Formats: sequence, C-alpha cells, structure tokens
Amino acid sequence: MIAGFDVGGTNARCLLIETDSGRVIDRERSSSEGSGVELRDRLTGIVRELERRNQTTVDAVGLGVAGLAHRSGVVRYSPNLPGLVEYPLGTEMQAALGVPVAVMNDATAGAWAEAKLGAGRGSDDFAFVALGTGIGTGFVCGGRLLTGANGFAGETGHMVVEANGPEHITGQRGPWEYFASGSALGRMGREAAEGGVFRAGTGLAGSIQAITGVHVVAALRAGDGEAAVILDEFCRAVALGLTNLVVIFDPERIVIGGGLTEIGKPLQEGTQHWLNKLLLGAKHRPAVDVVMAELGDEAGALGAALISQQQA
Amino acid sequence: MIAGFDVGGTNARCLLIETDSGRVIDRERSSSEGSGVELRDRLTGIVRELERRNQTTVDAVGLGVAGLAHRSGVVRYSPNLPGLVEYPLGTEMQAALGVPVAVMNDATAGAWAEAKLGAGRGSDDFAFVALGTGIGTGFVCGGRLLTGANGFAGETGHMVVEANGPEHITGQRGPWEYFASGSALGRMGREAAEGGVFRAGTGLAGSIQAITGVHVVAALRAGDGEAAVILDEFCRAVALGLTNLVVIFDPERIVIGGGLTEIGKPLQEGTQHWLNKLLLGAKHRPAVDVVMAELGDEAGALGAALISQQQA
Repeated sequence: MIAGFDVGGTNARCLLIETDSGRVIDRERSSSEGSGVELRDRLTGIVRELERRNQTTVDAVGLGVAGLAHRSGVVRYSPNLPGLVEYPLGTEMQAALGVPVAVMNDATAGAWAEAKLGAGRGSDDFAFVALGTGIGTGFVCGGRLLTGANGFAGETGHMVVEANGPEHITGQRGPWEYFASGSALGRMGREAAEGGVFRAGTGLAGSIQAITGVHVVAALRAGDGEAAVILDEFCRAVALGLTNLVVIFDPERIVIGGGLTEIGKPLQEGTQHWLNKLLLGAKHRPAVDVVMAELGDEAGALGAALISQQQA
Repeated sequence: MIAGFDVGGTNARCLLIETDSGRVIDRERSSSEGSGVELRDRLTGIVRELERRNQTTVDAVGLGVAGLAHRSGVVRYSPNLPGLVEYPLGTEMQAALGVPVAVMNDATAGAWAEAKLGAGRGSDDFAFVALGTGIGTGFVCGGRLLTGANGFAGETGHMVVEANGPEHITGQRGPWEYFASGSALGRMGREAAEGGVFRAGTGLAGSIQAITGVHVVAALRAGDGEAAVILDEFCRAVALGLTNLVVIFDPERIVIGGGLTEIGKPLQEGTQHWLNKLLLGAKHRPAVDVVMAELGDEAGALGAALISQQQA
C-alpha cells in the first residue's frame, strides 16, 4: 500500500492506495493547521490509523503541499501553511514512519494523477491547470513530470500577463492568477453587481460585497444570463494564460482541474472558444483540446502517492 | 561525421562535425531564399560538398529552422522562410541523401548545443534565451530537451506579458518579443532620440528614424551614458519575461544567446539585477544565475547536428 496526502491551507486529506492498481482503499481527513511538528504528528497518526484499520502496511508516503515544496522535503514558502515553512516535514515524517516520504507541490502531484489515471491518459504532453482560490499548474512533457531544479516548477499563477495591470496580493502587477482564479471570478461578480447588473449574485450573497466565485457559479447553474456574460469574460482571461502555455510547451491537451470545474461544460467550452481565438498561429498547429479533469479533488493526494511509489 | 544546419531567414549555415567529439571540422554557408525544392537541392549540395572536401561521409543531418518546425520534418509556419512552409524538407532531404534528417526549431537546437558543449553544461534544468531580431527559446528540463507534442515548444517570444499593450507585428498585444528583442532595443533608441536624448544614436545612424539595435549597441560600446539608460530599461523588459519562465520552469540557470550577447557583461549584469528584483519570492529560492551563451552564432547548427545523431 501507498499513502498520499494533499495538504491544503485548512485541511489535509489522505488516501490509502493499492500499489499496483492505484485503487483507493480508504480515506482520512484532518486539519492542516498548527506548527510543523504538530502536522508531522497528525499526518503520521493518520498513516498509522489507516494501516490499523485496513490491516496493512504502507511502503511509501507522498505529500502534495500548497506552496514552494523543495525536493529535499522542506516547504520553502507557503502563504497558506505558515507553520510548515522551513520545517523539514519530509525527513521528519520519514524518520517517524520508517518509509520513504516524497514532498512536492500539490498541483504537480495532481498533474501526475491525471496523467496516470485521469484526463491526461494517453498524452505525453499536456498541461494541468487547477482553477481554485488561486491557480496551480503541473506539466507533463515527453511523458515525464516537470519538477524543475528545486521542485518549484508550475507556479504559473504568478506568470505576469498584464505588466501594468492591477496589484495582486502577491505584490506583483497583473499576474494570471489575478484575472483567472476563483477569487477573480468573485471580483468580476462584484464589479458586475456594482455596475447595476448581476442582481442574481447580490440576491444569492445578500449584498454586493459578499459576492464570491461561489455565488457566480450558483447563478450560472441557475441559468442566469448575466452570470454567463461574466463567465465568458472569465474564460477569456483563463485562455489568455493558456495561450502563453501553448506557445511555451506545445501541449496537445489542457486539463482543467480545481474547484471551478464544478461549472462544467460552460467553463470547458468557453475556455476552448477563447483559446482557439487568441492563440497565435492557431491555424498552423493541431488544435489544443481543453478537457475537464477526471479525478476531482482527490487528484493531489492520488498523485502524491503515485510519485512516492516511483521514488521509493 | 554529422552535419547541422541553421536555416535563418536570409542565410543557411552548415557545420560538419566529428560524431564523438562534437568538434567542428568544416563550415559552409549559402542563401536560404527560394522555394522548398531549391533549398533542398542547395542544402543537399552543401552536404555533398563537405563530404567531398573532407573525404568523409555524413551519417545524419539536423536542420534548425526559424519557425514552427513539426517533428515530422515539415515547417508549418515561418514568416522568415515563406518558401519552406508546408514543404516536407526533412523527408525530401532524407530521400536525397539517404541518411536520417531531423528537423527542429533553431532555438531548440541552440539550447541543446549549449547543454552539451556550452554554458548549460552541468545543469539539468536551464532556459536558453536567444535575443536577436526576435526572441527564440529552448528549455532543458530534467536533462532532456523540451520539444512539445509537435516540436513547436519554446515559442516564448509570443508570450503575452502586457495584455493591453501595444500591437506587435504578429497582431498580438504586448508579447515579450515586442519589449525585449533586438527590434525593441532599436525602438527604445528611437524613442529616446525623439525625446531629445541619445544624440549618440542619431549621430551613429544618421537620423532618428534610422536608429536600430545595432546603433544602441555601438553607443554602449563607446561608453555612452544615455545608451546605458536605454539598456537598463531593456534589461528590465528581458527580466520580466524571465520571471515568468522561472515561476513556470524553476530553472537553475538562464543562458542568454543570440546577437545581442555582443553587448556582453552590461546585458548579463543588468538582466541578473532586474531578475533578482522582479522575481516573486526570490528570497525563498536559490538564486537563478543569468549567464552568457558560449557557442555564439554556431549554437543552432551544432545543436541540430547533435540532435540528429541521437535520433539517427
């Protein structure tokens, strides 16, 4: 058996997985808050509990972490997991469990899961783009996962697309994440409501200021036409960043994951439409397919487990 | 022996290379103008001539081409080589010569040459950025060359960094190449001259409108202070695109190639300065070294030859 964790800003999710089949045998969740030592003990306890409950042993553990996770097992930077920064979580868990522990970025892990078991199957060159509160990405190039020199590859949300644009929470001006994340969708909803349209959003949220991406998504699902206009603008912003990834990587496929996949077909079709329209030289290259991820919110934990197995 | 061509918009350059050592044995040049058939005959003739002159046989040929070169050997798009578009140069030369012919993008080839014999040696993760009339790039990731699904990877000059910026000759608004190529350096020189500074440029070029990147470089070499101010602004534009490449690829090194390397140390130092300053989270990651390419304008032909050998 192998175990994979997805360690987000609030919660950690763990999957117990059968080594050969990739089948999920059991699941567990916990808070991810607190210090590095607390997290080590909590995650180690989860592995022990899953072993006990399923009468099995875990041979390798993978951790997908929201942040700059150095391949040595140390999280170097993570706004969402301040207690983990500079704590050698990988080696500490390895010492506690007595099995290899691999640490990586959560979107990198998600890309690998989609490559092996999801919407990336059959493709040696694709980009995984997780649209959630922020943007996470992972790349499969020539059948291999892009990790970078330190394990920091795929921080594409920070790619600047509008150098004189608005200032993001990172301090950068105009990064892709500012325009094309779940947070951006919420801002677009508020801006529309301030402009006198998108009453559905105000109704759902209670006030203009309370509108988030969740309300835009809810209005979309209820068939609200103004939400559809907002989504079109949003898909254009997503696609603009994708054009950069296409000219750089030449993928044959883009796999969209993350919480916003809840929107479903309108997100997929809108993004595909704008990608075809904005991509330079689109008529000179085979179409790049935009598809939806297949593994939902378990992709990160699944991929972390699969990668731990390869490195063990 | 292997032969490598760099097929640019005006000229084709060929190197005859000793297979094991990578040593250049002989060189030849020709025009690259005309139809696909004419080019096939001219390049085939060069290989024959080099064989004859050196009393040897060539076992594999590589072609680095300015444009979207499909891995099948067909150039799909090339503003600079209109006669080549949709012509199956690879298979046609292979038929004529009776040896394997690999076709690839010129900057991709240059990256591989620097990886094996130049400034990329010892690094498994680096970006090669050729600053010439436009921008060409190639990436080595985990020790392997990034080619993409079709062989189109590395068209990073088309990466949009200023979505509401000026329109480029490609029709895009605000691609990196608009701001950070040799053409951009010339425009910056003209703009400075129009603003009443950079008299050295006007003097060298004869008129404001005649100023190109060449005159800015010449003024820099002559120690002109106003040219140094222009270069600083230019280095900032180069570095902005590099920050995108760093967050995406996590390279340990950036190798600057292309004609503008003539500027030397001021370009390298200015770019390094701005990269350190603009890169998000720079203090959380090891420094990314900006270094100058070592193989000069023969990198493309050399890399094409080395790749042809691997694929043969």
